[in-house]
Amino acid sequence: MNANVSEKPFHRILLTGAAGGLGKILREKLKPWADIIRLSDISDMGEAAEGEEIVQCNLADKKAVNDLVKDTELILHFGGISVEAPFEDILSANIQGTYNIYEAAHLHAVKRVIFASSNHAIGFYKTTEHIDADDPVRPDSMYGISKCFGENLSRYYFDRFGLETVCVRIGSSFPAPNNRRMLTTYLSYDDLVRLLHSAVFTPKVGHTIVFGMSNNPSSWWDNRKAAHLGYQPQDSSIAFQHLFPPSGDYPDAEDIGANYHGGSFITSGPQYK
Amino acid sequence: MNANVSEKPFHRILLTGAAGGLGKILREKLKPWADIIRLSDISDMGEAAEGEEIVQCNLADKKAVNDLVKDTELILHFGGISVEAPFEDILSANIQGTYNIYEAAHLHAVKRVIFASSNHAIGFYKTTEHIDADDPVRPDSMYGISKCFGENLSRYYFDRFGLETVCVRIGSSFPAPNNRRMLTTYLSYDDLVRLLHSAVFTPKVGHTIVFGMSNNPSSWWDNRKAAHLGYQPQDSSIAFQHLFPPSGDYPDAEDIGANYHGGSFITSGPQYK
Amino acid sequence: MNANVSEKPFHRILLTGAAGGLGKILREKLKPWADIIRLSDISDMGEAAEGEEIVQCNLADKKAVNDLVKDTELILHFGGISVEAPFEDILSANIQGTYNIYEAAHLHAVKRVIFASSNHAIGFYKTTEHIDADDPVRPDSMYGISKCFGENLSRYYFDRFGLETVCVRIGSSFPAPNNRRMLTTYLSYDDLVRLLHSAVFTPKVGHTIVFGMSNNPSSWWDNRKAAHLGYQPQDSSIAFQHLFPPSGDYPDAEDIGANYHGGSFITSGPQYK
Amino acid sequence: MNANVSEKPFHRILLTGAAGGLGKILREKLKPWADIIRLSDISDMGEAAEGEEIVQCNLADKKAVNDLVKDTELILHFGGISVEAPFEDILSANIQGTYNIYEAAHLHAVKRVIFASSNHAIGFYKTTEHIDADDPVRPDSMYGISKCFGENLSRYYFDRFGLETVCVRIGSSFPAPNNRRMLTTYLSYDDLVRLLHSAVFTPKVGHTIVFGMSNNPSSWWDNRKAAHLGYQPQDSSIAFQHLFPPSGDYPDAEDIGANYHGGSFITSGPQYK
Amino acid sequence: MNANVSEKPFHRILLTGAAGGLGKILREKLKPWADIIRLSDISDMGEAAEGEEIVQCNLADKKAVNDLVKDTELILHFGGISVEAPFEDILSANIQGTYNIYEAAHLHAVKRVIFASSNHAIGFYKTTEHIDADDPVRPDSMYGISKCFGENLSRYYFDRFGLETVCVRIGSSFPAPNNRRMLTTYLSYDDLVRLLHSAVFTPKVGHTIVFGMSNNPSSWWDNRKAAHLGYQPQDSSIAFQHLFPPSGDYPDAEDIGANYHGGSFITSGPQYK
Amino acid sequence: MNANVSEKPFHRILLTGAAGGLGKILREKLKPWADIIRLSDISDMGEAAEGEEIVQCNLADKKAVNDLVKDTELILHFGGISVEAPFEDILSANIQGTYNIYEAAHLHAVKRVIFASSNHAIGFYKTTEHIDADDPVRPDSMYGISKCFGENLSRYYFDRFGLETVCVRIGSSFPAPNNRRMLTTYLSYDDLVRLLHSAVFTPKVGHTIVFGMSNNPSSWWDNRKAAHLGYQPQDSSIAFQHLFPPSGDYPDAEDIGANYHGGSFITSGPQYK
Repeated sequence: MNANVSEKPFHRILLTGAAGGLGKILREKLKPWADIIRLSDISDMGEAAEGEEIVQCNLADKKAVNDLVKDTELILHFGGISVEAPFEDILSANIQGTYNIYEAAHLHAVKRVIFASSNHAIGFYKTTEHIDADDPVRPDSMYGISKCFGENLSRYYFDRFGLETVCVRIGSSFPAPNNRRMLTTYLSYDDLVRLLHSAVFTPKVGHTIVFGMSNNPSSWWDNRKAAHLGYQPQDSSIAFQHLFPPSGDYPDAEDIGANYHGGSFITSGPQYK
Repeated sequence: MNANVSEKPFHRILLTGAAGGLGKILREKLKPWADIIRLSDISDMGEAAEGEEIVQCNLADKKAVNDLVKDTELILHFGGISVEAPFEDILSANIQGTYNIYEAAHLHAVKRVIFASSNHAIGFYKTTEHIDADDPVRPDSMYGISKCFGENLSRYYFDRFGLETVCVRIGSSFPAPNNRRMLTTYLSYDDLVRLLHSAVFTPKVGHTIVFGMSNNPSSWWDNRKAAHLGYQPQDSSIAFQHLFPPSGDYPDAEDIGANYHGGSFITSGPQYK
Repeated sequence: MNANVSEKPFHRILLTGAAGGLGKILREKLKPWADIIRLSDISDMGEAAEGEEIVQCNLADKKAVNDLVKDTELILHFGGISVEAPFEDILSANIQGTYNIYEAAHLHAVKRVIFASSNHAIGFYKTTEHIDADDPVRPDSMYGISKCFGENLSRYYFDRFGLETVCVRIGSSFPAPNNRRMLTTYLSYDDLVRLLHSAVFTPKVGHTIVFGMSNNPSSWWDNRKAAHLGYQPQDSSIAFQHLFPPSGDYPDAEDIGANYHGGSFITSGPQYK
Repeated sequence: MNANVSEKPFHRILLTGAAGGLGKILREKLKPWADIIRLSDISDMGEAAEGEEIVQCNLADKKAVNDLVKDTELILHFGGISVEAPFEDILSANIQGTYNIYEAAHLHAVKRVIFASSNHAIGFYKTTEHIDADDPVRPDSMYGISKCFGENLSRYYFDRFGLETVCVRIGSSFPAPNNRRMLTTYLSYDDLVRLLHSAVFTPKVGHTIVFGMSNNPSSWWDNRKAAHLGYQPQDSSIAFQHLFPPSGDYPDAEDIGANYHGGSFITSGPQYK
Repeated sequence: MNANVSEKPFHRILLTGAAGGLGKILREKLKPWADIIRLSDISDMGEAAEGEEIVQCNLADKKAVNDLVKDTELILHFGGISVEAPFEDILSANIQGTYNIYEAAHLHAVKRVIFASSNHAIGFYKTTEHIDADDPVRPDSMYGISKCFGENLSRYYFDRFGLETVCVRIGSSFPAPNNRRMLTTYLSYDDLVRLLHSAVFTPKVGHTIVFGMSNNPSSWWDNRKAAHLGYQPQDSSIAFQHLFPPSGDYPDAEDIGANYHGGSFITSGPQYK
Repeated sequence: MNANVSEKPFHRILLTGAAGGLGKILREKLKPWADIIRLSDISDMGEAAEGEEIVQCNLADKKAVNDLVKDTELILHFGGISVEAPFEDILSANIQGTYNIYEAAHLHAVKRVIFASSNHAIGFYKTTEHIDADDPVRPDSMYGISKCFGENLSRYYFDRFGLETVCVRIGSSFPAPNNRRMLTTYLSYDDLVRLLHSAVFTPKVGHTIVFGMSNNPSSWWDNRKAAHLGYQPQDSSIAFQHLFPPSGDYPDAEDIGANYHGGSFITSGPQYK
């Protein structure tokens, strides 16, 4: 029986943010990768299924995070706040929280982290601009700034300690695109899992930044700098184009969603209503 | 009944050059985009069909062009001379003519123009060189120079007044490739329409230059700078490769068609026989 | 005595625009370069001095330009309109006029033209952007568009016929900077002559675009692509900095002169008052 | 007398970190720029001289920072921790502190901030690599990460609200270089002031990153992307080369100071002794 | 009957290295391209089939190579040593040998050579780096250095004499990938033939460097600089991925095969055991 | 007295090619760098002065080179043929010879080599093209090809074994420029020594390619990729400009010296008279 277990590539991996939108998806999809998936969130995650460990935990609590990371071999860090929020909340959950994860990963000799970064790290580029992973960041929100922080922090942990990270700048990962902008930024759940699989199982990743998008007809992002991951999206937003038919009403300069990679996030901040 | 009409994305759009080779194709294909297609040419265009307005017009006539543009919401500017010709003819039809179109578009608050540019704007690159939309122009003829003029002029109208343009550097848009060079530059009629659709209906295009080519096996042109248009060619010259079988007779340095993007245009000028 | 004459590097060179601001300066400075300087302008140029030929001429007159160019070895093309003007005037003087010059130069086997281009060919770049000669043009006026035309036309005559051109994108060539912007764009008369000397006497120039600026403390333009010319400016706007003392009154987004390379040209057009 | 005062370009500017090494220098040098210099530090700054206001303040205190920024026109943000320190200290002083400065600047309509960034934002590049302001960051310490945070945050405040920032990646600004590495990274106090003067008085800076270095013989950093600032260093480390004579003892791969831009900072962290 | 013969594109082409692994494959596949394939190797090649000529030959023998090349129209140069070997052996077979081929090709007016270069010319790039044909070489072995030599030599023969070459940097061309690295570098035999077909029959190739790889899911190499060849791989290593299942055992820095493009070649040298 | 000796940075360094044009200069200039300079050449070098060791040696003799390198700490490799010559001579002296030097350097743990490369490694670039150290090579001769070989070989020894090299692409190092081209390529003897000093005494050089030129008014080569060396030329060809006065006789396309970086080398080959 144990023989069965030992055939999975990892013994124990950690998924933070397991109660979040993507966390719930991944909780199911990652099962084949490890004997045990340790799930963490600040919110309730329900009962542990077989092959699961449940650890409710505030990522801002350094001691708790240290315990959380102990005995894991790989971390998929999807925890923290995933929308715009007051800076102090972002500071605690996303900045202090991500530091705690990396410091614990280093102390426990975890070899690789998959960091859920976001297109909001570069959301202030215009929709007529095309970028790749080496272009300067243009965060569109406090949330986006915290994702830049995570990318910079993980770069340091790789340069200093050899701890590898794949930063996935997730586009719009939902069951389907919700608006016209998402036809460009859509990442299907299946493609998300494909991308994570590449990020986890490529033998050598160093510090890689990859844009998380399906094989959509239009694009603002060039993934050639991550071609070594071998990520091959199989889905496309083209199936949803009929939901957002084109029109001749050209948006004016104030229609943020049509003007910037980050869409409406740019004006979503609670502090400037 | 009117309800029917009002469901089309535009009420009235203008197509110049409607009697030309591509104009005739587009006259049929654009019908679903607008209630009324105003057609213009210096030549006879026959009778107006339902949903058409016919305006015979010399583009060099500023007053006439002003009237032509009035009450239109979008212009597809395919008019002017489309082969090499004496400079003075080019000056009148393509340079003065294109200025007249843009000035009228600005005065009548048209929001977007699709400009039929040409590969001859960059025809003096060698067939072993690969370029994208930001590489310097290399016109191969007076005709090509007039296309550069239109690209520069439209850049100005966007930077100065916000009037958007997509410049389509059309390759070889014919029923089929006519020679070996066109295996690389071929743009099927259906792909032309797909590209124009992208150019017209993408919410924000700013000033975009895109190469008009099908999904051909070989290429000299990189369309990544226009990836936001979401143009996805569905055709390919590969279906015609058997018509121009390869040979071991390597062309010498004087075989223009095999040496430059622009092919034989380079020596087609009437002024230097 | 003739011996004296025959030691100058050229026998006869042509300077167009000789009655203009820079033309008057060059009329004096170019004497050591040629036995005879043929001077041309649409305006009166006064009496011919020794070693000068005076030819009053409208550049839009093809026949007259052909005669003008005959028997010259080198052309410094400073003629045409040098400020914003109605398009039709620009079309005649700068577009038709420059075509006439190049066509005549080709027919009379002139080997090199120095073309007075302008920073207004790229005037719509922002003052926080830095460009070199290969970056796409961004004309800021009809005048600027005509300079782009001259650059494209001369590229063609080089690629097609081997007729060499140096396009000098002149900054602000006046006795002294007239405003704060010109501290960045200043080109002293002596440096202008140095630059023209490099452009004329470098053995091989092909088609070169060079920015005409002195050794000013700040810059938006990178001349490395023209380093083969060996142009070494000796003057600097630093001597004039005290005339435009810095202030803490930051310009707002509407202060064109402080926002774009081209300064106030951008809004100087007669057509949009 | 007041007439005298009113001729200074600013009425009141804020200098944070006024008790620090560079703060003490700047406290003297900035006097000609403003009627009143408001000085802030967490440490004692002594008595206020004429034209000074002294505000002792913890930058992590949002309310206090808001009061500190009130009624100032320009901020030179040199406050916070300027060496490697435990993350929590960096988080409070440099991350929360810099956020507080920008949020207050935005709320009080300050138009420009000069942010004292650091070479440690890119300290993990190797000494045989050359970079400019657009290359990806490579922080070498928690301190360096906090500088990246400030650069990203200020980018956001510019893109979102138009609040301009010049990020000065200060090299080694001391009375003289202290070791061989500093021959490359040296920034004299006078050049620091020259650079700040450029950053403060250039009419339009947008969001600019500039490397703070004197005119040293060797360099790893290319300042062309900031050429619009017109910064012209007048000093050089060449005067100090005799203090660190060359040797034939090549450093091995473990000699951090000779291998990375950031020198010994890379191993200076308190957490990994 | 001769009519039959004369329909093949070439009369006589030369294949060197015909007894090698790829040579044996090509011996069969190239038959449709020429009436006669002259086969050369230092080893025994068996009997000549119809349409074959067999010439056993040491490429280091200049006189013999001159005879070998005589009367051929095209050369596919696959001869020499194809693994790491002592430098003196490489020098003779690959450096002197390749020189002999090119010098003979020039003297006999052969117009094009297809040179079997190798990924080992750039094998010292890391597996997280992505390159194209213009990036500097990083040879991983004496063998790789000899391939760089061939690329440089052929560049010279093109620039100096117009003798065209396509350098094919062959990845791993075997019946199937033998290890995990080869999932990225795999080139199927059929794709090899497709690539050679493109290289031979494209009308103008100048001096082109192309990476020889199938349409594999992951890649380190960007072939856009050779897009004019129109090479369209039809195979993929994806069919073999199940043979090398991913694992969570991340390689350490010493696992050469997972760290460098060139894989284990890097340490394969006979001289440093 | 010995104390005196021991203050020099090196104990013993090797200079190959000591009887050549530059070798004779360096024999004198390098004395302050080492107690003992071992001099090598295939030709007679006269008597050994104090602090010199004379070793007449054929670089193609592997055993002799091994003895030559023994007990040295640094190698300045100026040996071999320095003009165009039959390939077999180049092969022996420059290719086998340079391999022998590097292999011996590796076996004797020499830490750094200064390799006398040449502008002829890139001599086929046109005089209107500007390059830096990362642009592809364009050798103009067998000699130039051998220099490319040395650059590639030294790259390998650095990537594989950590043996550092500075490749100096020497321009025209003579007492004075001999023709107009050398106004651009001139490297004064004093600047050569300055450059070698930088190459020898910079603590970390990895594998660096630097163009050897004085501070000449015109340039085709950009040394920013070697800015870490801190090389500051003090001389200029400007002092010699009067010797090669400009003329209006533009060279035609066949005047090699005016068309290519490498000047007349391009046609200097003994094999094609």
